[in-house]
Amino acid sequence: MRMVDMIEKKRDGHELTKEEIAFVIKGYTDGTIPDYQMSAFQMAVYFQGMTAEETAEFTMAMVESGDQVDLSAIEGVKVDKHSTGGVGDTTTLVLAPLVAALDIPVAKMSGRGLGHTGGTLDKLEAVPGFHVEITEKEFFDLVNKNKIAVIGQSGNLTPADKKIYGLRDVTATVNSIPLIASSIMSKKIAAGSDAIVLDVKVGAGAFMKDLPMARDLAKAMVEIGNKVGRQTMAIISDMNQPLGYAIGNALEVKEAVETLQGKGPEDLHELCLTLGSYMVRLAGKAETTEEARKMLEEVIENGKALEVFKLFLQSQGGDTSVIDDMTKLPTARFQIEVPAKEAGYVSQITADEIGTAAMILGAGRATKESEIDLAVGLVLHKKIGDQVEVGESIVTIHSNTEDVESVKEKIYHAYEMSTSKVGPATLIHDEITK
Amino acid sequence: MRMVDMIEKKRDGHELTKEEIAFVIKGYTDGTIPDYQMSAFQMAVYFQGMTAEETAEFTMAMVESGDQVDLSAIEGVKVDKHSTGGVGDTTTLVLAPLVAALDIPVAKMSGRGLGHTGGTLDKLEAVPGFHVEITEKEFFDLVNKNKIAVIGQSGNLTPADKKIYGLRDVTATVNSIPLIASSIMSKKIAAGSDAIVLDVKVGAGAFMKDLPMARDLAKAMVEIGNKVGRQTMAIISDMNQPLGYAIGNALEVKEAVETLQGKGPEDLHELCLTLGSYMVRLAGKAETTEEARKMLEEVIENGKALEVFKLFLQSQGGDTSVIDDMTKLPTARFQIEVPAKEAGYVSQITADEIGTAAMILGAGRATKESEIDLAVGLVLHKKIGDQVEVGESIVTIHSNTEDVESVKEKIYHAYEMSTSKVGPATLIHDEITK
Repeated sequence: MRMVDMIEKKRDGHELTKEEIAFVIKGYTDGTIPDYQMSAFQMAVYFQGMTAEETAEFTMAMVESGDQVDLSAIEGVKVDKHSTGGVGDTTTLVLAPLVAALDIPVAKMSGRGLGHTGGTLDKLEAVPGFHVEITEKEFFDLVNKNKIAVIGQSGNLTPADKKIYGLRDVTATVNSIPLIASSIMSKKIAAGSDAIVLDVKVGAGAFMKDLPMARDLAKAMVEIGNKVGRQTMAIISDMNQPLGYAIGNALEVKEAVETLQGKGPEDLHELCLTLGSYMVRLAGKAETTEEARKMLEEVIENGKALEVFKLFLQSQGGDTSVIDDMTKLPTARFQIEVPAKEAGYVSQITADEIGTAAMILGAGRATKESEIDLAVGLVLHKKIGDQVEVGESIVTIHSNTEDVESVKEKIYHAYEMSTSKVGPATLIHDEITK
Repeated sequence: MRMVDMIEKKRDGHELTKEEIAFVIKGYTDGTIPDYQMSAFQMAVYFQGMTAEETAEFTMAMVESGDQVDLSAIEGVKVDKHSTGGVGDTTTLVLAPLVAALDIPVAKMSGRGLGHTGGTLDKLEAVPGFHVEITEKEFFDLVNKNKIAVIGQSGNLTPADKKIYGLRDVTATVNSIPLIASSIMSKKIAAGSDAIVLDVKVGAGAFMKDLPMARDLAKAMVEIGNKVGRQTMAIISDMNQPLGYAIGNALEVKEAVETLQGKGPEDLHELCLTLGSYMVRLAGKAETTEEARKMLEEVIENGKALEVFKLFLQSQGGDTSVIDDMTKLPTARFQIEVPAKEAGYVSQITADEIGTAAMILGAGRATKESEIDLAVGLVLHKKIGDQVEVGESIVTIHSNTEDVESVKEKIYHAYEMSTSKVGPATLIHDEITK
């Protein structure tokens, strides 16, 4: 086989065989296929797409390019959840203890990564003493005992995806449904879960700007999962504004605790129940989504979900007294209000502008070397549909410096106001269960 | 400027500015833009095309990437001719002295290159003593005096094109009209001619397999030429069979001489008169193609064209007695006939198969290091429309070895026969004078 023939075949819109796709991925991973051929191939994929069959083979070839996590030591159906790039997304912090409270094993491997706010690992470190430096055996034992544990990602998972992603980023081939779908799914599959629930964000602040494209991505991922024997479902949720009110690490832990207590923001609560219901169904703990939802509501009401969260934190060294008294969480020196400049109704809050504002404060990492400030961030007071008076605070900035001019500017830029009444945003746009 | 933005802009079908195109070509030539970005860019061009304006800018950016030949020391309008990849194409050998005989300066720079038969330089070396090792001053003086001279190509012409072509070849982006057109035209423009006549081949043996594509290429090249101030005209000629009868270096010199004497193959004669007429018009020596054609016919009839050819060979050391007695040209040891296996009418002769047969005999170079055998080659006896009896010779193989089985096989494979009568092939499919 020659790579130039594979490029030509894809360029001309033909379907590649399993063997041809394996040749491409293997060759690119081991360096026998050079970057310049892979980038031409990817641009051809950008224009010609890939069939569902090809996309599944592409995904599995990337999975097989590196280590695969073996979760067989954990009892029960391992269901993983993945959200595609939102801002202020506290769902993992809520969902993990929520479904664990229903005896569904949550074996989370988490990295740090770059972004507007930290990853799940960083957020959890807002709880003093919490750490993920545990052995694989301790990890499995904890999951079997508590149904929930988090470990730092190790091993060489999907090296093909890493290499391909790096190339796509500099060759304008990021924005291709089969390439995005296979990239996400390869990581989830290599991480060893039996079933996957996907939360595809759509809107001004998301990578997918419109619903048809988000739907295509969701369908492509569900198709991959089902083709390779990992039951997969997806919802498409709104990202025309950040989810919940808090953006920042300690601030999001607080919001997660409130949500587990049934006192969280309505949209975050609703999204967690929706995603959670699918996870419960896929784990085989309920027949219908309605039944699953009732079970989740129950563990919030009876305090079991919060209890599991505390047990989880404690088992990994966390000081859970901060959960009972959240003023003990890391707190920023300054709380600065952002007053509305004009009256009206909030019509949109560009999530990535809000995310950038949080990053300027130090809540996220711009480079691998950046230090995260766990205390800082934003708390929104007004969301889509809310009425605002001039001078009323729309956001509180939690900062360790008083100079927040550029942060304020980003916030004003993010908020779009309308003089006429605006209805609340739709949270769940679609559900794709195949 | 960032290359990734240029790729994205082209990917999305937008037109690049002159400055953006210059950035791409300059960056790629000096190595600041890596291969993997250029190949993605080219694949985007493959799918989205380039406007006439972009293609012209792309061409000129490649011209400016290296040296440009200055022909201003030569008097008169310098008209160059270019044929796009045919087989057994003896037109240059005929056309050069033909138009020089009408006082049109022919300042030919020629390389050796790879191919089925040698380049013009190789063919001319079939004349004992002939050489192109002359100084630039001698070259200019000879053209001013005799109106015709050939020199080996020197200088670093269009390095951008060389680098880009190399990349296109391994990334399945060769077959793009704007990329082909700019590649050809950049070389012609850098070579310093004032006007250009193009002969775009179409058919089974040509790079362009169908007429619409050949027409698109011809139009794109004529547009480039006219946009950058080099008057350009094109014809589209048939390559469903080789031109003339001879394929091979000395064999083609013989055929060229016969054509200059008015005794050559009809198709070669006709093509040379058509292309020649345009050259005469572009050189400002005639008002109409008809007038130009009469002038060309005259210099064939009165012997002036052949005389100029001999003067040219002599001035560069050639022994012109071989022209008066062509048995003195290099001759192969064996002449082997290829008898027809079936009766019928010739319906097609796949030119590149015939070319490969000639190359197997040693007439061309497979690699830069290959030695050319000037004596060997093929002489066709039957062309499209000709009737053939079983056992009648369709081709004579001129070989220096008796084992010509694989050559014969190629020839049989190249000839397609029909049981019903076939008309002669159309030679000139279209003329694009803009």
